[in-house]
Amino acid sequence: MSVLDEVLRSNALFVETYDTGRAMAPVKRKLAIVACMDYRIPLEQAFGLKPGDAYIIRNAGGIVTEDVIRSLLVAHYRLGAEEFLIINHTECGMQTFRDEELRDDIRKRTGTDSIAPEQFHAFLNLEDHVRQQIQRIRSHPWIPKHILLTGCIYDVHTGKLTPVPAL
Amino acid sequence: MSVLDEVLRSNALFVETYDTGRAMAPVKRKLAIVACMDYRIPLEQAFGLKPGDAYIIRNAGGIVTEDVIRSLLVAHYRLGAEEFLIINHTECGMQTFRDEELRDDIRKRTGTDSIAPEQFHAFLNLEDHVRQQIQRIRSHPWIPKHILLTGCIYDVHTGKLTPVPAL
Repeated sequence: MSVLDEVLRSNALFVETYDTGRAMAPVKRKLAIVACMDYRIPLEQAFGLKPGDAYIIRNAGGIVTEDVIRSLLVAHYRLGAEEFLIINHTECGMQTFRDEELRDDIRKRTGTDSIAPEQFHAFLNLEDHVRQQIQRIRSHPWIPKHILLTGCIYDVHTGKLTPVPAL
Repeated sequence: MSVLDEVLRSNALFVETYDTGRAMAPVKRKLAIVACMDYRIPLEQAFGLKPGDAYIIRNAGGIVTEDVIRSLLVAHYRLGAEEFLIINHTECGMQTFRDEELRDDIRKRTGTDSIAPEQFHAFLNLEDHVRQQIQRIRSHPWIPKHILLTGCIYDVHTGKLTPVPAL
């Protein structure tokens, strides 16, 4: 059985007991979360999120790229999000290589070059990294100053979320 | 109590009963999922995902942007993902406006212009949209041809996931 088949089988069970109210859930907490794609962060469970609570944006490293800014703008201007949480985590895979190293590796394995992605956004220091993402959001001319914005670190060994104080 | 306080309070309860094994979960299903940020899609529950099963990439519309390609490349070349699922959904907020409309609205409300994001990626037809995302992945020179790749539509009223057949 392929992974797709397994997913569809699990989904068939989910559908049987589906709570149709979920589709009607109004926006409650007006939150947008930017987090890493890592499966060690169970966002809903770890942060008590319920339907209607948060738009969830995830990518490799929890990086505030142009695409994340796009999603945050849609979340705010079209969907009512008024508070943003940036969640990075300990032992992130993006701390285990340098951009050029991965680029060279892929070039060698594929025998071809590519201009996109322009960057992989590997990083070294986690706290600096969180502050850099906050700065990227704060400096965008379309992000209103009244938006509540907090950067946090999630510890994958304890499950604990800790806000990173501004410098 | 602010939303951040609520999140931290929920997290404190989560930490008390945290399963430390989660941090050690090995990659199991070798899956990467690209989905919309919409909170009406409870990915873990709806698709039976467990720790170690899937890297989860989410943005406004479940669009395969350059940033999503970046995350998929990291998921494959650094983290072992061998199968990609693209999940778009019915009644997506990205079907409710046109790019220029949102751009004009934000320009008016902020009194300023911005070159980024270059596009918002609003769309009209859902099936076409799914096929377009699949095509964006398939056409990237660094995505290996052996990667299993499926586009699906998630129905927010029934919870059902349906693969979109290739044309």
